[in-house]
Amino acid sequence: MKVKIKKLLWEAGRPVVILNKKLAQKLNVNINERLSLKKNPNSINAVVDIFTGLTKDNEVGLSKETQKILNLGSTKEINISLSELNHSAEIIAKKIGGKELSKKEIETLVREITLNNLTEPEIAYFIAAEKMMGMTLDETRNLTLAMFETGNSLKINQKIVADKHCIGGIAGNRTTPIVVSICAAAGLTIPKNSSRAITSAAGTADVIETISKIEFNPKQLKSIVGRTNGCLVWGGALGLSPSDSKIIRVEKLLKLDVESQLLASILAKKLAAGSTHILIDIPFNGGKISKKSQAKELARKFRELGKQLGLKIKTVYTDGRQPIGRGVGPVLEMLDVISVLKNSPEAAEDLKEKSIYLAAELMGLCGVNFPKLKARRILESGKAYEKFKEIINTQNNANNFEVKCANLILAKYKKTVYAKQSGKITKLSNRGINSLCRILGTPETKSAGIYLHKKLGKIKKGEQILTFYTESKDKLRDAINFYKRTKPIILKH
Amino acid sequence: MKVKIKKLLWEAGRPVVILNKKLAQKLNVNINERLSLKKNPNSINAVVDIFTGLTKDNEVGLSKETQKILNLGSTKEINISLSELNHSAEIIAKKIGGKELSKKEIETLVREITLNNLTEPEIAYFIAAEKMMGMTLDETRNLTLAMFETGNSLKINQKIVADKHCIGGIAGNRTTPIVVSICAAAGLTIPKNSSRAITSAAGTADVIETISKIEFNPKQLKSIVGRTNGCLVWGGALGLSPSDSKIIRVEKLLKLDVESQLLASILAKKLAAGSTHILIDIPFNGGKISKKSQAKELARKFRELGKQLGLKIKTVYTDGRQPIGRGVGPVLEMLDVISVLKNSPEAAEDLKEKSIYLAAELMGLCGVNFPKLKARRILESGKAYEKFKEIINTQNNANNFEVKCANLILAKYKKTVYAKQSGKITKLSNRGINSLCRILGTPETKSAGIYLHKKLGKIKKGEQILTFYTESKDKLRDAINFYKRTKPIILKH
Repeated sequence: MKVKIKKLLWEAGRPVVILNKKLAQKLNVNINERLSLKKNPNSINAVVDIFTGLTKDNEVGLSKETQKILNLGSTKEINISLSELNHSAEIIAKKIGGKELSKKEIETLVREITLNNLTEPEIAYFIAAEKMMGMTLDETRNLTLAMFETGNSLKINQKIVADKHCIGGIAGNRTTPIVVSICAAAGLTIPKNSSRAITSAAGTADVIETISKIEFNPKQLKSIVGRTNGCLVWGGALGLSPSDSKIIRVEKLLKLDVESQLLASILAKKLAAGSTHILIDIPFNGGKISKKSQAKELARKFRELGKQLGLKIKTVYTDGRQPIGRGVGPVLEMLDVISVLKNSPEAAEDLKEKSIYLAAELMGLCGVNFPKLKARRILESGKAYEKFKEIINTQNNANNFEVKCANLILAKYKKTVYAKQSGKITKLSNRGINSLCRILGTPETKSAGIYLHKKLGKIKKGEQILTFYTESKDKLRDAINFYKRTKPIILKH
Repeated sequence: MKVKIKKLLWEAGRPVVILNKKLAQKLNVNINERLSLKKNPNSINAVVDIFTGLTKDNEVGLSKETQKILNLGSTKEINISLSELNHSAEIIAKKIGGKELSKKEIETLVREITLNNLTEPEIAYFIAAEKMMGMTLDETRNLTLAMFETGNSLKINQKIVADKHCIGGIAGNRTTPIVVSICAAAGLTIPKNSSRAITSAAGTADVIETISKIEFNPKQLKSIVGRTNGCLVWGGALGLSPSDSKIIRVEKLLKLDVESQLLASILAKKLAAGSTHILIDIPFNGGKISKKSQAKELARKFRELGKQLGLKIKTVYTDGRQPIGRGVGPVLEMLDVISVLKNSPEAAEDLKEKSIYLAAELMGLCGVNFPKLKARRILESGKAYEKFKEIINTQNNANNFEVKCANLILAKYKKTVYAKQSGKITKLSNRGINSLCRILGTPETKSAGIYLHKKLGKIKKGEQILTFYTESKDKLRDAINFYKRTKPIILKH
């Protein structure tokens, strides 16, 4: 039936449609059931809420999400009907029961998530089932393909399109801007899109955003890459895998790492970006992966899936015992990146060496000769820094790199922790440092985070260990309490 | 800080607080973080949504849930601050990781759920972890106690307080009104509170509601029981275990049965109701439990927990292969119950015999002599029917039992399925019949449901198998499609 619409100023967190009791009775629909709303060519199954006094008998109220998906324009009426049964709940329950899902079942789930037809608790059940029951390689491949097929594709017209990805979990590990700058300066096409932080202190997109625009559509991205060989943009704006952000939003609540979701999320976006040669950095002994054997098992899955999906994948294992660089948090990490690119004397040596190593591995995978030598030379000669400036200025469509850098300012509240005794730092937990940064306000508060004065190894009484930065006194209090309670840094005699 | 409040006409499904960007920046709070809102003596941690244009710089918008919990009255201002860290996410992640939770951790979770501090996806993660990882007996006992301690208690002043519970999953299995009537007529105190349907077509509360008020506070309940020995009320209104309804709301989404949650939910409410002698009916070979060995294992857990909690528990195993009675759905089941109580010739024999059996077992547990003989005599003499009328009239505070019964009217759309051949019904799935009823609109639509003309056994070509009842043509279409697709009834030559 046709009904009038009332646009409500409300983000409900999910697509909601409000009816009054009379209309609900007429339709015989109850709270939490779904109504199918249609406004050609768009449609959505929205969750019903019944509320009297807000809408008239021939009218429905729409939450912001519902309005957005239906793309209403100046429409005053839409068509509503009871939705056909949605089998997603049965499919998720099947997985919770330990059974393998078929290609068709996985496609149904991903499509329904993309169309906003699943609620957040339903998505949480699916993620929990993936985590606790595990997914077979077939299921993971089908998940990857379904996530790829429901999104946009970039179609970069090059025989070799280079890409890299780090499994994450390592605080401060901001190699991407440096690796992209080196590889692009070496002549490779490297249209890098990155995510925002999921569970860590900052994602590459959060860090780049401190000095650059990061939201582009596929056409704009191709223009940037056409001029500079590379880019450093946020993947979310490209619409490469729209179900991904909805899943990540729910995954984040518990900071869960779900292997099948990780594999599918990464590879679906690589397929959509048109990447052909991909380096996967798998840190172990800390971060998300504790043992080398786990890292090897994950690498095997990446390579096997890559083969099935027609991608050239190289995996490398790196040291995950402690954070990389000095700064953790968007502004602090950007300052680290710039120091390395500028070859400043205070540049973090570990960040520099890891970036050269990864750039060389990727160049080698793409067929560049003498990659180690070339990667180091490009960085140390300042060519990588020039390329980085060029990419940022192109993304900003302005010559404002220096101005942007001058505005990298740290948060106003700070607190430094000092060594009470001489000895050795024997533990510097990535997870602990990331959690602390989140409490301090990262990644939303760009100026917040932690500066690590010392890393694993010797320290003298009275030396600085780390400094907290935040824009809120309450958050500083919470962070200090958390630091004392969880002891992410251990100092021994 | 103190801020003004704006009451929003919105059920967000969770407690939400809306700020504009300026206020959010001032507080350094981001979307999906929590703010602690205080209006003495109440407080809540509400989820933050940032929206500009709806509220002023010194004002917060509150969803209906938030308003309700804070009990605002004529208040115009409340106190807000960043909430202290909530460890629930860590606790749930620990359980997902397969580790046992301590008493304190379980208490934290239940308290946070009770205070509305957990979102629905967080609750879904916890339920999924309980389901897939299982809970130890210690965890289950601690969950029971935490759920009991966060709610009201009835404190019935009797040495023996009888109670019964059925594990459920059996369609049409409405023995409770009959058992309560027999036991109360026999002189036992049986203040029975029941739930609404979770995954089945109807719960006892939904069925009783077709002719009676079912919402009472503890004081009113005691007055009813004081006059009639028994009652048939909805447990939800008593506030015995407020976390339970929030958990069930999320459990329902996938129709999950989670054993530890089942045990804790039942026993917490029995403790709160002051029950001392409890009969647990565990159907097997269908419904929720397929094998006798599973039924025995569950029974063992009930008895062991009962011992630890100071409750006298008796478990019985009953036949769960098919629905009990003829009608499935609130009105249809009430018609079945009345037929049995009236000793009508068309009364469902299986419902009658099962009710007598359960009543006799419970009477025996409570020390009544010759319970089998007495239970049958009370039912067949019409004493149970008189007691049932007395309880309903007392609950309605009016002599309107007959009028209420005359208003038990079935839904306007119906469709009967006939046998296309002679043969035998070899399968009559409880799960399938329950799902069909949900599609037809039960339990919210009281007049909807299914009438089973035949049960397992012989049938002749052209005889009626079952009739669908619903108030919606769309739902009739969905139900017929579901019936054809899932084949809940199998007829063989």
